[in-house]
Amino acid sequence: MSISPFDHPFLSGLLGAQAAADWFSASADIAAMLDFEAALAQAQADDELISADAARAIATACRCFVPDMMALQDATARDGVVVPELVRQLRATIPGEHRNALHFGATSQDVIDTSLMIRLKPAIAHLAGGLGDVIAGLDRLEAAFGSNSLMGHTRMQAAIPIAVRDRIDAWRAPLLRDRQRLAFLTQAFPAVQFGGAAGTLEKLGDKANAVRQRLAAALGLYDGPQWHSQRDRIADFAGFLSLVTGSLGKIGQDIALLAQSGGAISLSGGGSSSAMPHKQNPVQAELLVTLARYNAVQLSGMHQALVHEQERSGAAWTLEWLILPSMVSASAASLQAAGSLLSSITGLGNGRSQTQS
Amino acid sequence: MSISPFDHPFLSGLLGAQAAADWFSASADIAAMLDFEAALAQAQADDELISADAARAIATACRCFVPDMMALQDATARDGVVVPELVRQLRATIPGEHRNALHFGATSQDVIDTSLMIRLKPAIAHLAGGLGDVIAGLDRLEAAFGSNSLMGHTRMQAAIPIAVRDRIDAWRAPLLRDRQRLAFLTQAFPAVQFGGAAGTLEKLGDKANAVRQRLAAALGLYDGPQWHSQRDRIADFAGFLSLVTGSLGKIGQDIALLAQSGGAISLSGGGSSSAMPHKQNPVQAELLVTLARYNAVQLSGMHQALVHEQERSGAAWTLEWLILPSMVSASAASLQAAGSLLSSITGLGNGRSQTQS
Amino acid sequence: MSISPFDHPFLSGLLGAQAAADWFSASADIAAMLDFEAALAQAQADDELISADAARAIATACRCFVPDMMALQDATARDGVVVPELVRQLRATIPGEHRNALHFGATSQDVIDTSLMIRLKPAIAHLAGGLGDVIAGLDRLEAAFGSNSLMGHTRMQAAIPIAVRDRIDAWRAPLLRDRQRLAFLTQAFPAVQFGGAAGTLEKLGDKANAVRQRLAAALGLYDGPQWHSQRDRIADFAGFLSLVTGSLGKIGQDIALLAQSGGAISLSGGGSSSAMPHKQNPVQAELLVTLARYNAVQLSGMHQALVHEQERSGAAWTLEWLILPSMVSASAASLQAAGSLLSSITGLGNGRSQTQS
Amino acid sequence: MSISPFDHPFLSGLLGAQAAADWFSASADIAAMLDFEAALAQAQADDELISADAARAIATACRCFVPDMMALQDATARDGVVVPELVRQLRATIPGEHRNALHFGATSQDVIDTSLMIRLKPAIAHLAGGLGDVIAGLDRLEAAFGSNSLMGHTRMQAAIPIAVRDRIDAWRAPLLRDRQRLAFLTQAFPAVQFGGAAGTLEKLGDKANAVRQRLAAALGLYDGPQWHSQRDRIADFAGFLSLVTGSLGKIGQDIALLAQSGGAISLSGGGSSSAMPHKQNPVQAELLVTLARYNAVQLSGMHQALVHEQERSGAAWTLEWLILPSMVSASAASLQAAGSLLSSITGLGNGRSQTQS
Repeated sequence: MSISPFDHPFLSGLLGAQAAADWFSASADIAAMLDFEAALAQAQADDELISADAARAIATACRCFVPDMMALQDATARDGVVVPELVRQLRATIPGEHRNALHFGATSQDVIDTSLMIRLKPAIAHLAGGLGDVIAGLDRLEAAFGSNSLMGHTRMQAAIPIAVRDRIDAWRAPLLRDRQRLAFLTQAFPAVQFGGAAGTLEKLGDKANAVRQRLAAALGLYDGPQWHSQRDRIADFAGFLSLVTGSLGKIGQDIALLAQSGGAISLSGGGSSSAMPHKQNPVQAELLVTLARYNAVQLSGMHQALVHEQERSGAAWTLEWLILPSMVSASAASLQAAGSLLSSITGLGNGRSQTQS
Repeated sequence: MSISPFDHPFLSGLLGAQAAADWFSASADIAAMLDFEAALAQAQADDELISADAARAIATACRCFVPDMMALQDATARDGVVVPELVRQLRATIPGEHRNALHFGATSQDVIDTSLMIRLKPAIAHLAGGLGDVIAGLDRLEAAFGSNSLMGHTRMQAAIPIAVRDRIDAWRAPLLRDRQRLAFLTQAFPAVQFGGAAGTLEKLGDKANAVRQRLAAALGLYDGPQWHSQRDRIADFAGFLSLVTGSLGKIGQDIALLAQSGGAISLSGGGSSSAMPHKQNPVQAELLVTLARYNAVQLSGMHQALVHEQERSGAAWTLEWLILPSMVSASAASLQAAGSLLSSITGLGNGRSQTQS
Repeated sequence: MSISPFDHPFLSGLLGAQAAADWFSASADIAAMLDFEAALAQAQADDELISADAARAIATACRCFVPDMMALQDATARDGVVVPELVRQLRATIPGEHRNALHFGATSQDVIDTSLMIRLKPAIAHLAGGLGDVIAGLDRLEAAFGSNSLMGHTRMQAAIPIAVRDRIDAWRAPLLRDRQRLAFLTQAFPAVQFGGAAGTLEKLGDKANAVRQRLAAALGLYDGPQWHSQRDRIADFAGFLSLVTGSLGKIGQDIALLAQSGGAISLSGGGSSSAMPHKQNPVQAELLVTLARYNAVQLSGMHQALVHEQERSGAAWTLEWLILPSMVSASAASLQAAGSLLSSITGLGNGRSQTQS
Repeated sequence: MSISPFDHPFLSGLLGAQAAADWFSASADIAAMLDFEAALAQAQADDELISADAARAIATACRCFVPDMMALQDATARDGVVVPELVRQLRATIPGEHRNALHFGATSQDVIDTSLMIRLKPAIAHLAGGLGDVIAGLDRLEAAFGSNSLMGHTRMQAAIPIAVRDRIDAWRAPLLRDRQRLAFLTQAFPAVQFGGAAGTLEKLGDKANAVRQRLAAALGLYDGPQWHSQRDRIADFAGFLSLVTGSLGKIGQDIALLAQSGGAISLSGGGSSSAMPHKQNPVQAELLVTLARYNAVQLSGMHQALVHEQERSGAAWTLEWLILPSMVSASAASLQAAGSLLSSITGLGNGRSQTQS
């Protein structure tokens, strides 16, 4: 099926980000959930909550596990989460004496939230790379065309000439700040989620913190107290995504306007039309605007999900599932399109004179 | 891949609507686009713009067409739309003398928008059916429990007792109005889109309207002037979807609150927990809230897309592609969950006395 | 104070709609609430629930009432609604024997929701008038310039020439449909809200419906069962508002783009710049885009408020208060700006030739 | 007038933040704009772009200025910004030989954006104070009731008992992070905006940077290159606001749910009802939910405004004016309500036993 253009057989050509499959496919999710269970068992064995044999048996089971997808789908309909059935299937592959050691003291949200964190880590690295590429693309444009003249426009009217460098500065400065924002944000994110039934890790007694620290370390995540009903870091991350796509959207809108009036920009490539073969449509420039507006819309939903009542809100949590993967994908697609669009610019602004439009 | 929970291997168990595949799969889209091309050719043959032989050859080609999906994906990246490459592939299967008769006078947007309309028709029928099912479910609840007493709550506080019938009335009345809204909306929607390069059907001369009428009739759509840059009916339809899910969200929130306090409602089924096997989670009730908030968020994007500049806005149009299929799917999922949730209610309110909570 | 530009001492010049004061000032609200109380007393006297003398005393009190605003403000902070204190103040001006007849069987929400409905009635008439004016302005433009040529643009690129008439059709058709939508919507809206504490009018016994009908008739509103927790008609109305401003936003965007490229449009007036006195900024065209995007954002909040739990949700209801008046004001401002902008067009398109931009 | 509840004669009792008048009244705006003009003149005199006499004359004029509000309103309608007319009025009060020194090299956006920054500075300090108060309130609650037992709830169902301390941790941790976020955000914000007609300060030659630095220092703002078309810091600040209100909304929702089930929380005060005098409505708890959802909606608009085309987008910029003051006010109101609500809690959780709800 293909409800979302992000993973649609042909629309993904335009809107998809190749790498998104690595983060948001069902198999990537299951793999990360299995990583959680194996790492948890090992951490608990290290702290002698379960036996080393049990941890080994669980690790083996996780490595060899093949899910019954139909049963997972059916159970998710019933339980609202995949974990009870996933644990049931996984447990069935573990020798009887070690079965109770699996998922010990954990709850569904621990598994699902931590799986997300595990997968956001490479996603964040990818986005950081894309951000760097776009900035480098802007640097190249500035080196090539920075001293050319461009008619500045205010309120959709020609104002006075500026240098191409001025426009590029306005495009790049927000992205440089986004890089700082990401550095700040990732000082404590993504972090492991491990709290048990209601966040108190009541089954782990005084070994709770130690196990959680081991678990975080094994998974390459930040350690910290459970945050199952504290969604601010996820909403903040979503805000970062929309800041990036919003600033790229401004670049896209500017390029589409430059391309409309003609003369001030030269683009190689450009989309063709079924009715007008002569046209060169600035498809990627428009796409940047689309994705900016898309993420700006979605961000509202991530902030609605901050009202996460009590110890776990099925309603608010599921809302995140519907939105965040699309926002990350939109951001990756936007960075990819921006990089490609900038590379396609073969001319920007007008020679050396600073006086004409 | 599976970025969207609506068509995710296991999350779709919770969030997916089976039927959505019939409307939003790539193959359903391609089939509808081929229907457009074949019906257009026949309409143009009937009005002697192309030969009857050409129309037959095009119909045959459409019937036998197997797309090269990779090429479609690549071309969509370049062109922003799939149509130029789809037409190119299709044209290559048509005998040389009839090739130019294909897609005559049409543009990409005609094909894509009309394909959407063709597929929204059964989607609307499905949603209308779901709406009827939920209303029938409420009627059954009323017949079974309507005269029971329920503690009315205002501002999250017990107020005075009401009858179960009163609560059911408040749940059902908006859905009855939604039915009227849908009847009004579908007096002229979904309608064929056929305008050519810039909406003027300039290549069809004085036969433009006649061909468009034939095309609409053949496709089972309303006829009317081109609306390529007029997105109000699509945004209005999105508003209808969000009204439905919003009203179902209120039902879900009410049921979740009833289930929390216990006593006043009995539900069969209910989700299980990986940490607390004793719990019966009102998963579907929460899901109704999720989907209400989701569509309320998305609706904003459909209205942003009303600012559709000039004769065709790639930016605004693509934004619809990212949002509308998810909204329709969310609505179908919500109606399905609501119907199922209502069926699972085995008790509502308290006996005959009207005095206790 | 002046937090909102809609009623800001100087920004309202740009963004305010004069008439909005008649609908959303505190005094208009209080006047409508007093109308509710007086009409309710008269209806109850007609049905012999209170005495005719009491109704007269209440009518007199309502006519002569001068609120203690500071006390209303303080009490609203405490109660979340103004009504308990308003009724207390009003009651204090009524002769002792008639005091209990005031507000008999009613609750705060009856007063506040009905007051809103009373005030939306002239607002709707005003918007309908504005819609008519804009349509008439488009008719005039068509008569003056319809056969001129305009370069059609798709995807921000010159496509093929169209007639000015074609563009005007695309601007006008959605507004004509909005007129039909409003006619449909106002077949049962605005309607009186009267339900008492939890919607059952339990204090009025078998006279409940009769009193409500009289009340509706006296206030010039539709009659119908209480709808205190059914917010769909208000959300639907908000959707109508955003459809209108969205379609006007497209006109604004198109005009701003026409003004940018120059030549194809002539505008009288236009904003001046503090730095560049030569510029003529298409201020009203941009404003239409602003207000379209504003309402598209706000609409999301009105749909979030559909999740109105139980018999009265303070949270969801108050959210409407924060949003709806601004949406109505934005819509009135947009219609006003659109009418004025269209009047300022002194040339559109190019002579008789159909070939150049 | 009173379209916005934030500054409505009686609704502001509930929704208003007293201090907001200091930031968003027209007079506060005009005062800050005059501060800009006076500080700019002094900076330019210091760098010998204008004479010291001119700077003194301008300072005097700014000190004594009384605006003609009606003329400002009329001119804002025409120009889209107040500055051209404000400068005209102010210039008329300056001796003839110094008139041209006023507003030298500046543009409307410099004045308006910098005025906003000047006023956001105390607003941010106020919000930081409110955040501290709420955190202190939570610390007090923890000290008083932290070891009490509370029934943990997941998915709207009783789960297992937790300590009151656990719930308070979940409420406080996001606010502690918000404090860090604010510290990060205010490392370079609010910053002066000074760029002239199209951002290049072309009239100031090689003294541009020096003047801008002096201007920033005089106004107590960060210095930095012009950012007129880079709205990311404003959108990021809006995100901060919505993170705060979102986290307070979770507290509100939790308290409303605690108050509904009764027993686990005791609140002094609470709203009264016009129909049911016995009720104690958790008005402030609901209000926190309202304001969380409100800001979550508005945030979308601030991110839409990131698509700020070319050197100045009237459309995107004006959208910020419509939204940001309301978001700041909502945030101040939310912090105030949260502080007050926490103070009103006279009991939380159940004695020493950890086993019942």
